[in-house]
Amino acid sequence: MAPAVLSTLATEIIIPVCAVIGIVFSLLQWALVSRVKLTPDRNNTSNKNGYDDYLIEEEEGVNDHNVVLKCAEIQNAISEGATSFLFTEYQYVGIFMVVFAILIFLFLGSVEGFSTKSQKCTYDVTMLCKPALATAAFSTIAFLLGAITSIISGFLGMKIATYANARTTLEARKGVGKAFVTAFRSGAVMGFLLAANGLLVLYIAINLFKLYYGDDWEGLFEAITGYGLGGSSMALFGRVGGGIYTKAADVGADLVGKVERNIPEDDPRNPAVIADNVGDNVGDIAGMGSDLFGSYAESSCAALVVASISSFGIEHNFTAMCYPLLVSSIGILVCLITTLFATDFLEIKVVDEIQTALKRQLIISTVLMTIGVAIVSFIGLPTSFTIFNFGVQKVVYNWQLFLCVCVGLWAGLIIGFVTEYYTSNAYSPVQDVADSCRTGAATNVIFGLALGYKSVIIPIFAIAISIFVSFSFAAMYGIAVAALGMLSTIATGLAIDAYGPISDNAGGIAEMAGMSHRIRERTDALDAAGNTTAAIGKGFAIGSAALVSLALFGAFVSRAGIEKVDVLTPKVFIGLIVGAMLPYWFSAMTMKSVGSAALKMVEEVRRQFNTIPGLMEGLAKPDYTTCVKISTDASIKEMIPPGALVMLTPLIVGTFFGVETLSGVLAGALVSGVQVAISASNTGGAWDNAKKYIEAGASEHARTLGPKGSEPHKAAVIGDTIGDPLKDTSGPSLNILIKLMAVESLVFAPFFAAHGGLLFKLL
Amino acid sequence: MAPAVLSTLATEIIIPVCAVIGIVFSLLQWALVSRVKLTPDRNNTSNKNGYDDYLIEEEEGVNDHNVVLKCAEIQNAISEGATSFLFTEYQYVGIFMVVFAILIFLFLGSVEGFSTKSQKCTYDVTMLCKPALATAAFSTIAFLLGAITSIISGFLGMKIATYANARTTLEARKGVGKAFVTAFRSGAVMGFLLAANGLLVLYIAINLFKLYYGDDWEGLFEAITGYGLGGSSMALFGRVGGGIYTKAADVGADLVGKVERNIPEDDPRNPAVIADNVGDNVGDIAGMGSDLFGSYAESSCAALVVASISSFGIEHNFTAMCYPLLVSSIGILVCLITTLFATDFLEIKVVDEIQTALKRQLIISTVLMTIGVAIVSFIGLPTSFTIFNFGVQKVVYNWQLFLCVCVGLWAGLIIGFVTEYYTSNAYSPVQDVADSCRTGAATNVIFGLALGYKSVIIPIFAIAISIFVSFSFAAMYGIAVAALGMLSTIATGLAIDAYGPISDNAGGIAEMAGMSHRIRERTDALDAAGNTTAAIGKGFAIGSAALVSLALFGAFVSRAGIEKVDVLTPKVFIGLIVGAMLPYWFSAMTMKSVGSAALKMVEEVRRQFNTIPGLMEGLAKPDYTTCVKISTDASIKEMIPPGALVMLTPLIVGTFFGVETLSGVLAGALVSGVQVAISASNTGGAWDNAKKYIEAGASEHARTLGPKGSEPHKAAVIGDTIGDPLKDTSGPSLNILIKLMAVESLVFAPFFAAHGGLLFKLL
Repeated sequence: MAPAVLSTLATEIIIPVCAVIGIVFSLLQWALVSRVKLTPDRNNTSNKNGYDDYLIEEEEGVNDHNVVLKCAEIQNAISEGATSFLFTEYQYVGIFMVVFAILIFLFLGSVEGFSTKSQKCTYDVTMLCKPALATAAFSTIAFLLGAITSIISGFLGMKIATYANARTTLEARKGVGKAFVTAFRSGAVMGFLLAANGLLVLYIAINLFKLYYGDDWEGLFEAITGYGLGGSSMALFGRVGGGIYTKAADVGADLVGKVERNIPEDDPRNPAVIADNVGDNVGDIAGMGSDLFGSYAESSCAALVVASISSFGIEHNFTAMCYPLLVSSIGILVCLITTLFATDFLEIKVVDEIQTALKRQLIISTVLMTIGVAIVSFIGLPTSFTIFNFGVQKVVYNWQLFLCVCVGLWAGLIIGFVTEYYTSNAYSPVQDVADSCRTGAATNVIFGLALGYKSVIIPIFAIAISIFVSFSFAAMYGIAVAALGMLSTIATGLAIDAYGPISDNAGGIAEMAGMSHRIRERTDALDAAGNTTAAIGKGFAIGSAALVSLALFGAFVSRAGIEKVDVLTPKVFIGLIVGAMLPYWFSAMTMKSVGSAALKMVEEVRRQFNTIPGLMEGLAKPDYTTCVKISTDASIKEMIPPGALVMLTPLIVGTFFGVETLSGVLAGALVSGVQVAISASNTGGAWDNAKKYIEAGASEHARTLGPKGSEPHKAAVIGDTIGDPLKDTSGPSLNILIKLMAVESLVFAPFFAAHGGLLFKLL
Repeated sequence: MAPAVLSTLATEIIIPVCAVIGIVFSLLQWALVSRVKLTPDRNNTSNKNGYDDYLIEEEEGVNDHNVVLKCAEIQNAISEGATSFLFTEYQYVGIFMVVFAILIFLFLGSVEGFSTKSQKCTYDVTMLCKPALATAAFSTIAFLLGAITSIISGFLGMKIATYANARTTLEARKGVGKAFVTAFRSGAVMGFLLAANGLLVLYIAINLFKLYYGDDWEGLFEAITGYGLGGSSMALFGRVGGGIYTKAADVGADLVGKVERNIPEDDPRNPAVIADNVGDNVGDIAGMGSDLFGSYAESSCAALVVASISSFGIEHNFTAMCYPLLVSSIGILVCLITTLFATDFLEIKVVDEIQTALKRQLIISTVLMTIGVAIVSFIGLPTSFTIFNFGVQKVVYNWQLFLCVCVGLWAGLIIGFVTEYYTSNAYSPVQDVADSCRTGAATNVIFGLALGYKSVIIPIFAIAISIFVSFSFAAMYGIAVAALGMLSTIATGLAIDAYGPISDNAGGIAEMAGMSHRIRERTDALDAAGNTTAAIGKGFAIGSAALVSLALFGAFVSRAGIEKVDVLTPKVFIGLIVGAMLPYWFSAMTMKSVGSAALKMVEEVRRQFNTIPGLMEGLAKPDYTTCVKISTDASIKEMIPPGALVMLTPLIVGTFFGVETLSGVLAGALVSGVQVAISASNTGGAWDNAKKYIEAGASEHARTLGPKGSEPHKAAVIGDTIGDPLKDTSGPSLNILIKLMAVESLVFAPFFAAHGGLLFKLL
């Protein structure tokens, strides 16, 4: 095997340099956003507020210092609420983290009875490897590192989002283009910080672990998988807790405010309005940040662990070993260039261009990344090498690996476009759903559900083709790098994704600060595009989760020493059917949690409207804090049962039923969960935009259904409310369910292989 | 191997005798129902109407001859509508049947190039078997036999149901007990006719085929599997076509009648009311009859085909070979005794006893059947024998087979009870859903969806345990007989199931004939219990479908000569994930079809209300025929795409991608479809009964939500309408999707094994 063109030294330099470039770029974006001032300079009479653009709004009071102060005040309230919730959440999650870390150490340490002696390697029995105790200790450290990085990712995302939303509102006074750039830049801060941070920590961890492991790369990368587990387990609580928080507040606020009291969305008189805005930041931003970081960490780990037992690892070819990290590094550079197209090279002048601009981001990043992957594949990999494939080494060429990454990358784009088609109100599916509101909420729901089911078809074929191609070329390694390919443009994906909730909040702040309806119209347009991009983001997250879990599943099967996962054995089949049931069990819990929490919220909001005199007239202030507390308490309490279901299932199944049944469970949960997740998030997205379609009344057809308050609009609001928990709580949490069970099984595989299947051993 | 206690002659006698007893019993029930006269005897002044019970209603006009005549007239209209629809449907289905029969002949005949020479057997290559051309011809005949039997089953069920509904209404004048007995007897007519008919035709077919095949049992029972395919493919069109028909009418009638015009359900002024009642008979009765007949035929075929290559077949032990038929025969006797408990031994006096009486039927039949199975297993089977298990013969004892049947039987009971718990308004889940209507339709839908998801958990565990036990004991044969065990009490199950739509129609006729509200209350109570039993029936259908498809799948894998179905091969995995998607694709089609057809119905009903003067005042008659035509046209047109999806998938996948991918598709569709089907039908059942709970106002809690027309009630009506296509169209059709694809794959297995996988062969 010829070595790669790129030397080890060059690799050692390129990866951290790219990561640092990402971080610097993200800080630069932050600095640009911060030029919009929230503390008005009383000596400044130029109306510029930081930038060289004059406000186009000159309505009464719109550039009043009071408006700016009011925006700042609301933003502070949101930011404080979000920070306080995340700290509460992290306290609980922190306890879990410590307990689970101990569990990992004990389970993995017990594999060889906590012996400190070196042992024969699992795959290459002629070599000596570090003891299981070392794997236990380093897996635990990696787990904690992953968990902390995930928390930081979510937290920083939330911080920048709450920093940016009032600034977006203020920039909306200068036109839709400026507001778009502010929101997008803020999204980019999060995207780049997260991608670069994840890469850097992983890179440093590998180098530090290597000081102990030396040439035992098999043990080294087995321990590194803990990083993925840590990332994803935090993501689970982030998504579920945040999802329940945001939707309890959102549903509660809408049911009383919009339906009963007939006041607009985000009206400051609504007691749940701050909780709702806080929710957007903790659920959609922090939760999603943790989620995608988890996917990224897991797919890297899955690729690395398979590579370590392939020729890369056996021959200690460091550059080739680092191929997954190199792909991510080049991804950061590609996304950097892509971002400039949105913020600097091209300018948005009218509302209709927003969606196009966001879509262009996806296309540009995918095209550029294809070139980037080609470069990395041809200089970072030897021309041919072997990849471990369930016991045999399979010969693979570098162009095949290039194709594996590309197939994932382009499948991601296809999933993105299909999601857009089914959830954007520019196309017929959502318009049909809106039209069905004519005959009431029931037909709206029936059409919406049908749309969600239908939207599954093409993404599944895209995923299936990616799996087939990458699996055929490079077995499980191929699938892992295909997942990485889909995630390689994560910085752009996250920027687009985070842009949505930021715009949503900007609109909320405009409403609460009492700004003119023209500003609200601009933020609404930004938000409508944001709904679609949020759905696209979820599509990416789900697609990549499917690939990642399959790769992890393959790695688990290899590590657990299973020869085959034959559906036609009873142990596997019962796992398969029970696994396919888990997404339903999980969704039942999360949906019910949102429903119950929303009922509590409704009661509280009603109580306040009934008991606080002058509230409806805007003379008295509502008690925001109690609503925030209801959401907080509900989400903390309710995130535990679904969390336990996901975290305990692999442990229980592996320990009592053994690795074959666990394989079945993983496969079943994967193939069933993907469908539920895609259909849930697209149905919800479609309902939301069907409602926005009627509200905006931008076409002849839309106007026959509107205006706000008409019977079809009321039906659309009901659909939107039903979609909330589907698209923001249960749907996106399911990615984590399937990934997390797979990575957990992989980490615990040595234990299950040694001591698992107690029940069948007894029988 | 010792022969069974029962001689071949005894077996040859017992099976047809039991079938004939079933048919005679069913005719007897029919005769009893027919004693309620619809042509009032003007000389009869005793008020008895056939039976020796006096009417307890003496309100004005209630025993008027005109009322009886009116009931007879409405019943005629419904019966004519249903007959005319079924004939139209059968015309289209007939064309399909002929085309598909030709396809079967060509595909299977081509396996050996239409050679007429005998060939080596597939499993025992030392023997000579009949040529593939014979299998082709006999499979085609078996297919046609199964299809025709299925059509007859559905048609007869519809006939007796439409014969009985007005009679149930009339008996309701004598009290709830009499009405219950009439409805239940009519259900029993259908149950026994169908079970006995299915058994008899199969038995005769085997004996006739044996005249040609002689000792070549391998070929004989391979050809017999066509019977299952015929049964299920008719069931598919029956379920889908009937389901679209009934729900288009129901949703359309409710949306305009109940929601817009505020007139009661089944009001004769509603133009869609006849179509709605016709729908109950063609969808819920004829469709379900065909469906369960299909399951029964398929599980028998799956068991027979496995038995033929096990020691039973190899040693030509006819009694043991007929074990599946013996179980069904004893089932008929058990159900006969069970029925007497409902109609003669115990009497219902008050409304609350209805649900208990129906539940008791399930328990009695299960307990008696356990004894029956024990008898059959110990006298019909040798003490020990071998069963074919993917290439090897596995030793099995008769007590093990007894346990296999029992585990299926009792799992069915558990599924029934869990379904009852989640869909009856006597328990907290439905009451919680009703309670959530307080905050509107959105929370109602969220809670209902969560309930459906949750209701999947226990049935899946029950199915998984049945699979594990029966698979461990007797491989695929065990699973096939477990499925038969679940279906062995099919006559009682169908009686309970058919009872629901009959009561529903009886209520409709009472309303349309202008009978007193006390009669309507009684029929409503019958109907509420019927909703739950319908859900239970669907639970059985789905549970047995899961077991049947797995058994068929196993038989297919054996026949196609696949060694293992390893999830970790790309060919299988892509099949698995695409297979898991199919239920979503299918549901998207059927849901959308119902939605679109309902929209058309809404327009027509609105048009009639707006253009026919005096309609709302009851002075003019609506144009029922147009509504019937809309439902008919929509269902005929819309049943083709989902039908094509199910019928073509195995052919396309098998031919182009080969048997491994097809195995993946079957497994994926099975594990995913079961979940979708259970959750859809329970969600729908729960919404329906939550609405009925509010309407009945039988408890303090229920009264705080009601009465009819209150905001919570309106929210409940929306939920009910959404549930209609879920529980009566897409949910129950999914059983057929999974069974049918499996049995089709099995029938075409010789072709796929010989010529399949073209695409991969080309690559």
